[in-house]
Amino acid sequence: MLAIPGPTPVPARVLQAMAAHPIGHRSPAYSELQAEISENLKWLHQTQHDVQILTASGTGAMEAGIINFLSPGDRVLVGCNGKFGERWALIPEAFGLQVERITAEWGKPLDAAEFATKLEADQDKRIKAVIVTHSETSTGVLNPLAAINQAVKAHGEALIIVDAVTSLGAIELPIDDWGLDVVASGSQKGYMIPPGLGFVAVGPRAWQAYESAKLPRFYFDLGLYRKAIAKHTSPFTPPVNLMFALGEALRMMRAEGLDAILARHSRLTRACRAAIKALDLPAFAPDDAASTAVTAVIPSNIEAEQIRKMMNKEFDIALAGGQEHLKGKIFRIGHLGFVSDRDLLTIIAALEATLQKLGSAVTAGAGVAAASRTIAEG
Amino acid sequence: MLAIPGPTPVPARVLQAMAAHPIGHRSPAYSELQAEISENLKWLHQTQHDVQILTASGTGAMEAGIINFLSPGDRVLVGCNGKFGERWALIPEAFGLQVERITAEWGKPLDAAEFATKLEADQDKRIKAVIVTHSETSTGVLNPLAAINQAVKAHGEALIIVDAVTSLGAIELPIDDWGLDVVASGSQKGYMIPPGLGFVAVGPRAWQAYESAKLPRFYFDLGLYRKAIAKHTSPFTPPVNLMFALGEALRMMRAEGLDAILARHSRLTRACRAAIKALDLPAFAPDDAASTAVTAVIPSNIEAEQIRKMMNKEFDIALAGGQEHLKGKIFRIGHLGFVSDRDLLTIIAALEATLQKLGSAVTAGAGVAAASRTIAEG
Repeated sequence: MLAIPGPTPVPARVLQAMAAHPIGHRSPAYSELQAEISENLKWLHQTQHDVQILTASGTGAMEAGIINFLSPGDRVLVGCNGKFGERWALIPEAFGLQVERITAEWGKPLDAAEFATKLEADQDKRIKAVIVTHSETSTGVLNPLAAINQAVKAHGEALIIVDAVTSLGAIELPIDDWGLDVVASGSQKGYMIPPGLGFVAVGPRAWQAYESAKLPRFYFDLGLYRKAIAKHTSPFTPPVNLMFALGEALRMMRAEGLDAILARHSRLTRACRAAIKALDLPAFAPDDAASTAVTAVIPSNIEAEQIRKMMNKEFDIALAGGQEHLKGKIFRIGHLGFVSDRDLLTIIAALEATLQKLGSAVTAGAGVAAASRTIAEG
Repeated sequence: MLAIPGPTPVPARVLQAMAAHPIGHRSPAYSELQAEISENLKWLHQTQHDVQILTASGTGAMEAGIINFLSPGDRVLVGCNGKFGERWALIPEAFGLQVERITAEWGKPLDAAEFATKLEADQDKRIKAVIVTHSETSTGVLNPLAAINQAVKAHGEALIIVDAVTSLGAIELPIDDWGLDVVASGSQKGYMIPPGLGFVAVGPRAWQAYESAKLPRFYFDLGLYRKAIAKHTSPFTPPVNLMFALGEALRMMRAEGLDAILARHSRLTRACRAAIKALDLPAFAPDDAASTAVTAVIPSNIEAEQIRKMMNKEFDIALAGGQEHLKGKIFRIGHLGFVSDRDLLTIIAALEATLQKLGSAVTAGAGVAAASRTIAEG
């Protein structure tokens, strides 16, 4: 049982769809699937504009989201308060851009005011993009995207490029309403399918920047994808079987409805946090900056790795560990994608049993009781 | 029934392996699979060096194979005698390299002597790489890689970068014996698995060039993959389920044996060509430059698209059409990967029936008879 923030659990229906014999990607049947997927991706992204589909991980999607819209020497602001934020600073650096990091301690959200200050000070409009991780998977922190976006909009020139890898389909992200320029995501998250596909939603201001952007690109040239998608095809061979999976998963998501999906993620997050609080396990991120994809826990009396190992060995539940300097200090509970109330209750019940086995003085049943209460309240 | 040069048919065993629930990519079980795959990829590539695995199409693998070893302004020779050769000239151009094309008519092989002349004239050793497509999928032409490689080796400085997308696992390609520096391939071909994975074998001279190469890269930075593979992991989230498929397919390939796989592809190619000759359907590529992955046919009296349509409609067999200026002029029979003698006989029998339905004056049974004879001779 996967309780990590990706790969996330995949419904049996989706696995079965994926296991069909591949078809030719230049066939009418493939184009039909691609057309259906394009429509459903727009629905999921709350956008009228095409969402580009890449054969790549989420990192590849973010690279494409950065290099298509900028030129060598451009100045960019990057929000860094976790492993992924830090990674997004490395990409523009590798491509010769001037990178300025806006940091926060890992486990704390970025401060929108710091972005506003930098952007207001940029009277020459030399800042061409602001790169922000919405849900920081490494720490379970949700960054204040709406507020940062307001600062970017006040600047008027810079694009906002969003890592929505673990936020898309897990929390409200109305791309067109907010005017987000570039939003990247990956398949093994809210999409409920295995890894291998990256997505980049691109708005009209970004396409305008694309015309004059000079960073070199070929495989990740989103203009090629845009042209192809208009003809319901892809510039390079797509991962046909993952597209079968995506088609089926999007059908399931539409059947559930976006509001219901987001409400479920909110409920699971609140239930998870109520449960760990009841078990005296401190959440790493504050309540008002809680990712709805993953909850990081920083246990004080028991070693995080001991908990993870026993959860895995005794209950066959995979939790994620900490990354970089948080290795061994935190563990992370994924509740993203195909995760139900029952799944969360299972994880919490197993966590309680694990704590008891490890000799912790927790009140038996307290975690499950707290989670149940939250679930009952909705 | 897929008879196109990719995606190629996938064995049921492999589809089943792929449909398993994903596992975490930072788990011991995943590392075990990765370690097994690494060993089997070395076996398939006939190399002692690691083969890097990318979440990307074959084009992504070729881009990685080019941009990791070169710097802006470097001079490269690119062999262009089909759609893919032409594409490999676009990548170094997009990245600001000086590209010189060595061309041949589509349907004819490249001339190794032309490479030799250019390379011998380059006394200053300004040519940093020679990029060659081994099997040109768009035309069914096999280029004289061994002879071109000799010319590159005589030059002494240039790297040879090979597109082996439809030749790896289909024809002899002893990477270490020949000293090939970079060899790129894709999963939906000889590997017998769906699209979504790209592979890049990198030799020691290429790694040396990597150290001083200055083209920008991040997602495709092969140094990151090299470091990760040494620890049986990957720098970014790998497509776990495609890795399940790859593991199973490589087990099947090892069980069959490389010699047997290559002999099968040779036999299928000869049988296919004997059959179309017996059916008065001219092969587009000459016998001595025949790809063992795909046979292109240029019919004279019947429209290629009519044949394809009827094969698809009446016999549920997908053939590939022509690309670019060959659209409508040729059709292509894929016999790459998980294709048996029986499959080829099926394709030829259906092709005969199609020709008869279309009113062609072929001798009934002539194609199957010719293919059978070749198969019987081995």
